[in-house]
Amino acid sequence: MKRLIFCLPFIVGNAWAAEELMQKAQALFKPIPTEPPSIRGAVLTPEKIELGKMLYFDPRLSRSWLISCNSCHNLVLGGVDLEETSIGHGWQKGPRNAPTVLNSVFNVAQFWDGRAADLQTQAKGPLQASVEMNNTPERLEKTLSTIPGYVERFKQAFPDDPKPVSFDNVAKAIEAFEATLITPNSKFDRYLKGDDKALNDAEKQGLALFMDKGCSNCHNGINIGGNGYFPFGVVEKPGSEILPEKDKGRFTVTNTASDEYVFKVPSLRNIALTPPYFHSGQVWDLRQAVAIMGTAQLGAKLTDSEIDSVVTFLHTLTGDQPKVVLTSLPPHGKDTPLPIVEVTPEGTVKPEGTRTH
Amino acid sequence: MKRLIFCLPFIVGNAWAAEELMQKAQALFKPIPTEPPSIRGAVLTPEKIELGKMLYFDPRLSRSWLISCNSCHNLVLGGVDLEETSIGHGWQKGPRNAPTVLNSVFNVAQFWDGRAADLQTQAKGPLQASVEMNNTPERLEKTLSTIPGYVERFKQAFPDDPKPVSFDNVAKAIEAFEATLITPNSKFDRYLKGDDKALNDAEKQGLALFMDKGCSNCHNGINIGGNGYFPFGVVEKPGSEILPEKDKGRFTVTNTASDEYVFKVPSLRNIALTPPYFHSGQVWDLRQAVAIMGTAQLGAKLTDSEIDSVVTFLHTLTGDQPKVVLTSLPPHGKDTPLPIVEVTPEGTVKPEGTRTH
Repeated sequence: MKRLIFCLPFIVGNAWAAEELMQKAQALFKPIPTEPPSIRGAVLTPEKIELGKMLYFDPRLSRSWLISCNSCHNLVLGGVDLEETSIGHGWQKGPRNAPTVLNSVFNVAQFWDGRAADLQTQAKGPLQASVEMNNTPERLEKTLSTIPGYVERFKQAFPDDPKPVSFDNVAKAIEAFEATLITPNSKFDRYLKGDDKALNDAEKQGLALFMDKGCSNCHNGINIGGNGYFPFGVVEKPGSEILPEKDKGRFTVTNTASDEYVFKVPSLRNIALTPPYFHSGQVWDLRQAVAIMGTAQLGAKLTDSEIDSVVTFLHTLTGDQPKVVLTSLPPHGKDTPLPIVEVTPEGTVKPEGTRTH
Repeated sequence: MKRLIFCLPFIVGNAWAAEELMQKAQALFKPIPTEPPSIRGAVLTPEKIELGKMLYFDPRLSRSWLISCNSCHNLVLGGVDLEETSIGHGWQKGPRNAPTVLNSVFNVAQFWDGRAADLQTQAKGPLQASVEMNNTPERLEKTLSTIPGYVERFKQAFPDDPKPVSFDNVAKAIEAFEATLITPNSKFDRYLKGDDKALNDAEKQGLALFMDKGCSNCHNGINIGGNGYFPFGVVEKPGSEILPEKDKGRFTVTNTASDEYVFKVPSLRNIALTPPYFHSGQVWDLRQAVAIMGTAQLGAKLTDSEIDSVVTFLHTLTGDQPKVVLTSLPPHGKDTPLPIVEVTPEGTVKPEGTRTH
């Protein structure tokens, strides 16, 4: 009896604090749903998703036939390439770190500078970028329309379209597949859904700190980020290795002075799987990334134990990774343009016309 | 009654010819089994196969973290890369066309020149080749032993080994997974198993021609090839574009003059999926490849309709492609060597020690 009386205030206090913490978190964050969302109000048909999956893994979408969407957004690696910045056609180094494709459907816009309104628009970027897949819409349409197995799939995926095999539909199908690449059921998601035991005490402490220190001012919502734009270095600019001077971020999209060095807040979903960090990809250690965020964005020099605590929380954001079954791709036809791997100003040494087919 | 008598000889003749064709084929070829074979008498454990699958898809086995086994032996593309010769570290072009990994477990030896006795030995080649994955056994062991998720998997896959994470075991696990990459149930396999209706008349005609013309002198057995060595150009050497002078094939393995320009007979399994053809990868058209084989190996100028007929048969060799479910790979640890993408004589511009981890 004595013991019960002694313990009671502690238990009550804990329960109250626990409830308050969960309510505060539920007001700021939302769990990842277990089913893919609709896209612009449209239902994702299985035909469209399956076609999108095939295209996502098909390196023939690139000029060289060596680079697929999955090369830089690798689904066995948390939807990224684990490179500082991506490597593309001719082993050229791209300008920014590849963001994860996982849960990207929940971002307000795509790319680090938000220049693509949606995944459909985003998909068209790397396909054409000379340092990435280095293709053209015309060549891509020629490629896919000369692969009989694809022609059939496009018809099924876009039954009402008079020209099913089109660059636009390639992007739409890829978007449909990417919308399925969501990672529900992280510890934190289970917590947000009301399971108080889903997080242990250290993880809850990290969550509390994440909110108290102000991390959640930018990193909130369903993707714990991905929903707004902020300058990198609100309080103090990081060094030029981490924030290179020449990449002015959203300024190049809006041409507005106040958008200099403004970037989309990255999602922290699965962050433990997706180093290196920031658009420049120079920071491999999550602890260091948290420390930089403290000084650059919050004007706070976090202690080592505070950093550890936030990182402990961040590890609870790793969700169930998508289970993807690889599909064998249809063989190309006799009129399909063959791969070009050479890198020259004209993009080719050996003209396509001279190839033996 | 009159009609029956009239038809009888024709039916009997056909049935006899059909039986003879099947018996002849069954004597020369064997169907792909539906279950993976054992390796050197050892059972393939699910733990070993699963680990091998993870390694097969993990680009962190390469120096750059960009190239996995699947890059050149892509399981969505018939186990090949559809390139003339493979592209590796630094976009360097390799010397030979990548053979398919599918059914390779049934080959007498691996590589075009047979220099690897088995898949385990083969796997060690591309991992270390400077124009491919450009790694070293030491670096690879360091990489995998600092990834906690892998350490656990290696223990499960090699429970009796005092040092489970080793270069040898990497190769053994990859071999175990590759042994599962078989493609049973092709039309031709069903025919070999006694289903006379599995091939139509045109396909049977192609099969008959394939045997009559002598193609099956080299291309026989379970892999319809892959079981012996022959000079490329027995009767007439093809041009140097197709048979480059500098690549002397098996001669470099055996140092025996009679092995100049001798190569392992490639398997014709799934051949319709795996252009371009020959070790030089210069021929994209299966018809042209058949024509070249006619003149170079058989001293026979096949007619267009004979070529078409053989190609019709070759299309029946496409089997059920492996259904592979992608596995999310474990994240690297703080002591894991980071990727090096630069290409210099020393292999790196930015020494590993200076990297921020």
